Amino acid sequence: MRTEQPSQSEYNRARVMRFLYNNGVASRAQIAKALDLTPAAITKITAKLIEDDLISETGEIEGARNRRSIGLALDTERFHVIGVKFARSLIQVGLFDLGGNAAQIWVDTTADHPSIADAVAALKRLINDIIARFGDVIAIGMAVPGPYLKDRGRTAVVSSMQEWRDVNFPDTFADAFDVPVVIEQDARAGALAQQLFGADTQQTDAHSAQGAQNSAQQRDLAYYLIGEGVGLGVIEHGRTIDGARGTATEIGHVSIDVNGKACDCGNHGCLERYCSAVAIHETLDEALAEGDAIVEGSDELSHIEACEALFALAERGDERALALVRDIGTVVGYGLVTIINAFNPPRIIIGDIVAHGGETLLDAAQRVVDERVLDDLARTTHITLSDMPTDAAVTGAAAVAITAFLEQPSRFVDLIRRQTPSAST
Amino acid sequence: MRTEQPSQSEYNRARVMRFLYNNGVASRAQIAKALDLTPAAITKITAKLIEDDLISETGEIEGARNRRSIGLALDTERFHVIGVKFARSLIQVGLFDLGGNAAQIWVDTTADHPSIADAVAALKRLINDIIARFGDVIAIGMAVPGPYLKDRGRTAVVSSMQEWRDVNFPDTFADAFDVPVVIEQDARAGALAQQLFGADTQQTDAHSAQGAQNSAQQRDLAYYLIGEGVGLGVIEHGRTIDGARGTATEIGHVSIDVNGKACDCGNHGCLERYCSAVAIHETLDEALAEGDAIVEGSDELSHIEACEALFALAERGDERALALVRDIGTVVGYGLVTIINAFNPPRIIIGDIVAHGGETLLDAAQRVVDERVLDDLARTTHITLSDMPTDAAVTGAAAVAITAFLEQPSRFVDLIRRQTPSAST
Repeated sequence: MRTEQPSQSEYNRARVMRFLYNNGVASRAQIAKALDLTPAAITKITAKLIEDDLISETGEIEGARNRRSIGLALDTERFHVIGVKFARSLIQVGLFDLGGNAAQIWVDTTADHPSIADAVAALKRLINDIIARFGDVIAIGMAVPGPYLKDRGRTAVVSSMQEWRDVNFPDTFADAFDVPVVIEQDARAGALAQQLFGADTQQTDAHSAQGAQNSAQQRDLAYYLIGEGVGLGVIEHGRTIDGARGTATEIGHVSIDVNGKACDCGNHGCLERYCSAVAIHETLDEALAEGDAIVEGSDELSHIEACEALFALAERGDERALALVRDIGTVVGYGLVTIINAFNPPRIIIGDIVAHGGETLLDAAQRVVDERVLDDLARTTHITLSDMPTDAAVTGAAAVAITAFLEQPSRFVDLIRRQTPSAST
Repeated sequence: MRTEQPSQSEYNRARVMRFLYNNGVASRAQIAKALDLTPAAITKITAKLIEDDLISETGEIEGARNRRSIGLALDTERFHVIGVKFARSLIQVGLFDLGGNAAQIWVDTTADHPSIADAVAALKRLINDIIARFGDVIAIGMAVPGPYLKDRGRTAVVSSMQEWRDVNFPDTFADAFDVPVVIEQDARAGALAQQLFGADTQQTDAHSAQGAQNSAQQRDLAYYLIGEGVGLGVIEHGRTIDGARGTATEIGHVSIDVNGKACDCGNHGCLERYCSAVAIHETLDEALAEGDAIVEGSDELSHIEACEALFALAERGDERALALVRDIGTVVGYGLVTIINAFNPPRIIIGDIVAHGGETLLDAAQRVVDERVLDDLARTTHITLSDMPTDAAVTGAAAVAITAFLEQPSRFVDLIRRQTPSAST
């Protein structure tokens, strides 16, 4: 999964693709102006993109000074991508158009399979079926729990995905389909989804005028995933922070107490040990074992079910459930403080299972930020719960595929040619 | 201090400048190949850079297939920059060539001035004197303790620079000289210095082949500044991680214990509270007050002197001094674990006062990394003490100026024209 550094010409093609993706129909003159390209350069770049069937002319549009010009567009409904989200206990697969709209979602519970090998085989069959059935799939994005060592193709910490530790993802999937596969850590995938499809947060602070402008152009943000594991994806200067081996922004393994609980990663006091769905489930089971149950029968529920049961109780006003959700929110807030001091993102979107703790959780987390972060920064960091549907996780996987397509369009040209024999070749 | 987004043509000029800066003499063909530019583009870009007197032709060099071609070079000795490093108790000013070689260093102790206003006035006089005397100064870089809010022009936490809290740096300095002023957080300045001038760490691990290639191109790294404050600068994908308001990578204010010591920033358990020169001095003074001095008379020393006295004792084998240095090293190690999990840099260079703790400190810190970081990551993260001279801090300020010059060369053209009236205009 080593990605080649794109060439300068590919870089400019990608910029035009991204501009049309973000802005819809635009004329050559408008694109050239926005991207500071010469008329000669824009003519050449768009000619190549049209020839490769990546963008198309849409007919006349109104340009500057009422002059008519030809519009160009990237048709986000013409192609599809498949997103695959791996978590400890289940695999979700979704078919999406390039706008991130889900056509269909499939869910596979790994426990239903006698072995991981069997689960992998079933997944491959499913994906090949989807490709054969729809015929316009151009890429597959996979989101795996971090830390994911890109150069090794493996997730590094056993705890969050025990049964998958022996699977080398690129070896297993890279050449399994007629379509390119792109693999990314799940929280970073979530950040890409927010960048591509998320609603922009209103920037109200006068001092963040530049931030707002920046955000409109690049949508810098952090996505704080709190699910079976805890992860983070940060988009800075328009692209993800990756690190040398792809394991940057592993907030779940940043310690909040160097003398705290031991973690399978070797560290002590990892954030993940205090606010993941697994940690919450542990707390519920401890209360149950002590004969003081918050969620009755929690030991027979999955992690997700246990959390949802807790949040439902809190929603109905159960005092002990509310107190626990506030405690979890406080820990989530410690993580926010670290995220702000380490990454200073313009906004942070909290997503995945634990985000279902809702306003009670968010209020407790925000209180910690207000107390522990410099006023100036606390005020200008916009913290929200993700408004994406529950499929957000698998939407992230789709975003990985779409981002790869927008960044290195040439890589997908042969495939598109094969799928559209009518295109001029 | 709002920096305009450079245009595409400026971006390509900057790439050529940076290539020549890193690689010395090269032909147009060599540059075009390395940067994937067309012959037409490279001809145009280099013509403009030569016309602007930013680079020059050096005569014939040997090219590919023994063909002779004209060499191009950026003369790093032709111009100078001034670096200014602000710390709590002193200001250092240095005159550097573009290669980072110090021509002269001046040190001003702020305590010698009746007021900060007086110190500022003296600094302005000094800088104007230097500019007048040398005549070839093209930029001034200033390094200030973080968190530095770029859009406000102020350092945000009082503790590390008490007396300077009312100084707005851009307002005070931006228009004070005939030369552009660029201001950056000090640890980020240190990271830029390592990127520009630092020795490359040998990459021995087979799995970091891509990392090594990456490093040669971009010199991604983290600079972990442990001085009167604790800071971090991270270079990722070839550029600094800044955050929305310039306060990213504030490792000194990332908590290592959410129930720990309160910090002036509002957070609890900030790393800075346990291993900065100020914290070390506090520990020494406490021992002294308890009649159990490690460094005799520590209460009459400056923070820097107290630390140097401790390290000198440890160097001579004093057991209690060694034990304290190891304790400090352990805390430095907690910071390293967070840096690796948060940023996954290919290498981390520890610099400033506390780096003088030497191998004893580094060994203790490395031990924590080996225990608490995933083996695979611990093995491939190269951690060293800075080998830059004690002037490294002010070298960082120079690096800020040189980086600005390389990134937006056009900004400096008018100035260079004025200074070189013989140049064709």
